[in-house]
Amino acid sequence: MAPMNVKALTFDVFGTVVDWRSSLVREGEALGRAKGFAVDWPKFADAWRGLYQPAMDEVRSGRRPWVKLDDLHRESLDKLLGPFGIKGLSEAEIDHLNRAWHRLDPWPDAVPGLTRLKTKFVLATLSNGNVALMVNMAKRAGLPWDAILGAEVARHYKPQPETYLTTAAMLGLAPGECMMVAAHNGDLGHAQALGLRTAFVPRPNEHGPGSNRDITPARPWDVIAKDFQDLAERLGC
Amino acid sequence: MAPMNVKALTFDVFGTVVDWRSSLVREGEALGRAKGFAVDWPKFADAWRGLYQPAMDEVRSGRRPWVKLDDLHRESLDKLLGPFGIKGLSEAEIDHLNRAWHRLDPWPDAVPGLTRLKTKFVLATLSNGNVALMVNMAKRAGLPWDAILGAEVARHYKPQPETYLTTAAMLGLAPGECMMVAAHNGDLGHAQALGLRTAFVPRPNEHGPGSNRDITPARPWDVIAKDFQDLAERLGC
Repeated sequence: MAPMNVKALTFDVFGTVVDWRSSLVREGEALGRAKGFAVDWPKFADAWRGLYQPAMDEVRSGRRPWVKLDDLHRESLDKLLGPFGIKGLSEAEIDHLNRAWHRLDPWPDAVPGLTRLKTKFVLATLSNGNVALMVNMAKRAGLPWDAILGAEVARHYKPQPETYLTTAAMLGLAPGECMMVAAHNGDLGHAQALGLRTAFVPRPNEHGPGSNRDITPARPWDVIAKDFQDLAERLGC
Repeated sequence: MAPMNVKALTFDVFGTVVDWRSSLVREGEALGRAKGFAVDWPKFADAWRGLYQPAMDEVRSGRRPWVKLDDLHRESLDKLLGPFGIKGLSEAEIDHLNRAWHRLDPWPDAVPGLTRLKTKFVLATLSNGNVALMVNMAKRAGLPWDAILGAEVARHYKPQPETYLTTAAMLGLAPGECMMVAAHNGDLGHAQALGLRTAFVPRPNEHGPGSNRDITPARPWDVIAKDFQDLAERLGC
């Protein structure tokens, strides 16, 4: 590994820090019990997440002006309620379900790992999630961020370069003083191309049992760690 | 006091959370000892802060495009070095002095008060300081912010309405769900006019001994507290 002068770690969040799929299933099951819905919640979670990239593409392409992720999530949810037989919810109940993304649970190593990493580095989110989503998630889960940055602050969705570069600039740092931490090889590839350092932390259960997406590093990233505790160890925290 | 549904406290920082004047004097004295400068550091601190509003006015008026506060501070500093007899510094030394604003000390009640307030409210900065300045200050002083927002994120300096309204919007809140906390009646007046709740915490020593600026509330603000511990008490934390 080349010598490093990393001052901040910038984190992908969905999948890397929090387990979105199990959390959405948990939220769905609670709703289903309360309302008597029989829904395949893992399939529902995958369908909701499946509309994520196409929704952002509308903004990335310029076909739509900036729309924050809470609103894209809601549009996607509205498309899925009928087909999944989720009916008769009030506006407040639909809004609560949409904010399930604010209540995602961290992977078990995330909070202790981040707490160690925070002693040595600035920790910032570099997520496509909007600020309120990230703040509410952090508050509930105890994620000790130093700054909530990323897409909404940059008004560009990853992997557009502005998302990464605005985050580094707002931290007052050169890209090479930032290390992108992600469970996704694609995200790290875009970060590396812009000069950021890279740390890969695979989350083999992100997409549920049996998935083989992003379970191994696609390149020799600067750091490869098995979880956030291991990342702290490897970065000398 | 009218019923309140406050979910976030948004903080003025310079003067309200940190004691900029004593901290700049401390930094100046350390530099003076190291370099043998005989400078009236309180006068220097007041002069540097004195160029703050005129520098931001250039941006507020649109005469200049967005410039972050670190850069305005540096331009002001460059004007003062010669007249105050601060000579022969390297670029790195001048930059270090400019970043004295990143190393301001909190008032003694700030960290314990914020720690209590954080249990019940989202705590966000709503300062004219840029993100890196706020992050580095918080990291050094232990200020437990949930989010660093304010001028740089809104690309408008207080008291322009966008600074307050963008901060509330990014928190996903209506203005009336936010309470502006400041030691300055003017800041609270602008916040109140936009619908934010208001808390006045006087800092009678902000401008040094004998100042009578902002030592009493100019209006019946929603909350008037003598320090952040008292604010936590009054807000039921």
